[in-house]
Amino acid sequence: MHVDAGRVIAELRALDARSGGRRVAWTATWARERERFTAGLLAELPGARAETDEAGNGWIALPGEVSETIVVGSHLDCVPDGGWLDGCLGVLAGAEILRAAATAGGARRTLALVDWADEEGARFGHSLLGSSAACGLLDLGAARALTDAEGVPLPRALAEHGVELEAMPQAARRLEPVSAYVELHIEQGPVLEQEGRPACAVDGCLGVRRHRLAFAGEVAHAGATPMALRRDPVLAAARTALAAREAAQATGGLATAGAIGAVPGIPTAVAREARLTLDLRHRDGGRLEALERRVLAAARAAAEDNGCTLAAEPLWAIAPVAFDSGLVALAAEHAGAPPLTSGPLHDAASLQRAGVPAAMIFVRTRGGVSHSRAEDAAEDDLRRGIEALAAVTAALTRGPGPPARS
Amino acid sequence: MHVDAGRVIAELRALDARSGGRRVAWTATWARERERFTAGLLAELPGARAETDEAGNGWIALPGEVSETIVVGSHLDCVPDGGWLDGCLGVLAGAEILRAAATAGGARRTLALVDWADEEGARFGHSLLGSSAACGLLDLGAARALTDAEGVPLPRALAEHGVELEAMPQAARRLEPVSAYVELHIEQGPVLEQEGRPACAVDGCLGVRRHRLAFAGEVAHAGATPMALRRDPVLAAARTALAAREAAQATGGLATAGAIGAVPGIPTAVAREARLTLDLRHRDGGRLEALERRVLAAARAAAEDNGCTLAAEPLWAIAPVAFDSGLVALAAEHAGAPPLTSGPLHDAASLQRAGVPAAMIFVRTRGGVSHSRAEDAAEDDLRRGIEALAAVTAALTRGPGPPARS
Repeated sequence: MHVDAGRVIAELRALDARSGGRRVAWTATWARERERFTAGLLAELPGARAETDEAGNGWIALPGEVSETIVVGSHLDCVPDGGWLDGCLGVLAGAEILRAAATAGGARRTLALVDWADEEGARFGHSLLGSSAACGLLDLGAARALTDAEGVPLPRALAEHGVELEAMPQAARRLEPVSAYVELHIEQGPVLEQEGRPACAVDGCLGVRRHRLAFAGEVAHAGATPMALRRDPVLAAARTALAAREAAQATGGLATAGAIGAVPGIPTAVAREARLTLDLRHRDGGRLEALERRVLAAARAAAEDNGCTLAAEPLWAIAPVAFDSGLVALAAEHAGAPPLTSGPLHDAASLQRAGVPAAMIFVRTRGGVSHSRAEDAAEDDLRRGIEALAAVTAALTRGPGPPARS
Repeated sequence: MHVDAGRVIAELRALDARSGGRRVAWTATWARERERFTAGLLAELPGARAETDEAGNGWIALPGEVSETIVVGSHLDCVPDGGWLDGCLGVLAGAEILRAAATAGGARRTLALVDWADEEGARFGHSLLGSSAACGLLDLGAARALTDAEGVPLPRALAEHGVELEAMPQAARRLEPVSAYVELHIEQGPVLEQEGRPACAVDGCLGVRRHRLAFAGEVAHAGATPMALRRDPVLAAARTALAAREAAQATGGLATAGAIGAVPGIPTAVAREARLTLDLRHRDGGRLEALERRVLAAARAAAEDNGCTLAAEPLWAIAPVAFDSGLVALAAEHAGAPPLTSGPLHDAASLQRAGVPAAMIFVRTRGGVSHSRAEDAAEDDLRRGIEALAAVTAALTRGPGPPARS
């Protein structure tokens, strides 16, 4: 099966020229590009069937001898001012693989391409919306309450695009015949670049525990308050940020203090409050919990030693996901080993969580930059990733059999 | 000489009830209260002379046998929502001392009360404005360029109150006969409360070096960037804040990181920049420089170790002021020893800098709170401070002679 990676790259550039950084889900630009994409691909694939499921996910299937289905895909939506590769690489590469499969013919299994709706959550703050719904992971009550920055409720925005919130879980039926899902994506981190590798298999997604910490001390005049009489929450927050790095290094995880601030935050006063966010990640659930325990204990000690009180508010938590080992091995064979574990979440995690064997392929990203107009990857690396996805897909549709659905 | 401290306290409470927290310099409320105060005091002191000098400072003098003048005073202006004691304690106590001196009669030296104009700098950001001008310390070019939050230029606001900016330095003539200046003020810090002392002498003002630091690193995805590949400016800033405290403790000074922040400041990204303000204070000029060197060296090392660059911008610097040792000893005899060194600046520092022997007396402040409606002091402590100022003033106006003008 021969794929034309150059055509995929050219189409990615054309898509970016038309709508780059503006394809936020549930907007007119996004909807127009999805329609254009589907119509264009259907015109080239007379035997294909297109449908939009109850969650707004777009499907194009190329029927094989059996209904058992291998799925490739990603998402056409992007963050505001996002780059030319995040999401659309996996969709446009999948389209080329459908064309190549149709030309080659004779596949045993059905091959489908999916364009998940609203992976980014850029407008309503809920990422992986379409795949979560199809995978039975959507909390309808919480989703019903979401609004965008202008106060528009999510259900109204969905309805404008023909999606009824309450019916979204019915999209689960679309996964029934699916026995494998493989997603091609840029890494969005610096590891492959650092290691000098163009691409690799991905064996899962890191678990996340996210907290907002508030240290309360006592406001005091910077010139009139001896050091020993201070209750300085900035120092407690500072010590916690450093302790979090130490704990991450000790446990092999990640810890990020991305936001820090002081109230009132003026040069001549000891602050009365300091705030800090902590994003903790690990590939192993037990170690993630250990990392969290260690960091929160360090925060409590830092608060106490500085005469402050600590309020820790959990912001978000998700368990690590391990992709299907057989699919990861197949992806590693064609894309490169050892596999990475993804820090960012992807729709593939929803599928694996729902019992659909899943794996991913990452392409080296320039400088690890993503969610930015500066996002980039070398054409040779993109070619390598697209061809690896094609080889994996060919093996799955034609080979003796994909991993059994768990 | 008998002073009625109870009357001073009652007048302070009445002043607060009329205009508390609203006597910002160069506003109608402030001007009205100054006029009312001067008219009231003059009516009780037939022999007194009032004048407003070229810098807007209000003077009321009770002539003695010689023109050599002992001055007490402080300021009637306040910060927005300021308390009932900061500034007006020294002025209203001074008024009672003039009344007591007039009743007692027979003083050799002239006794004057001064109400400095715009000590707080609350509207135009220039503190000690009136005393700086009288003491030859005012930078006219810089003052000319000042505006308030609404864009009103300082010269226009001054003119509305009969003050011509360019003529302000001529107020220096008013200091020519002055051989001592003593100011009563609340401590605005927690030290006297901590030590269980109602009042004390003040031997000077701490020197200050203030900097804004900006650490530049590299923005990165919190989930996709290994700890070892990060250039995290928040960690550099955190380490610097902790190092500043350590350096302050080691040198016997003060260090405050009052403001800290991260850009973009989101939970899921390593920041690209972190900002930190550092306010460093010491009573000794050489040690203040050593403290500054040590903290800036720690900041550079923290930047380097975290792969960041550092930009340090000096915000403000002032040398320490040591008050006149003879006056400090006299104040200590009546108000309590050992003397404190003031962290906040006061008009007394301008006078000492200009060669007028100066000293201060501090009264214990509840919880060290000031510049707030919650500012408070016990009546017994206020009485102690007022009586100490009266005793010091009596000694200076009647005694063998104040310290020679340096």
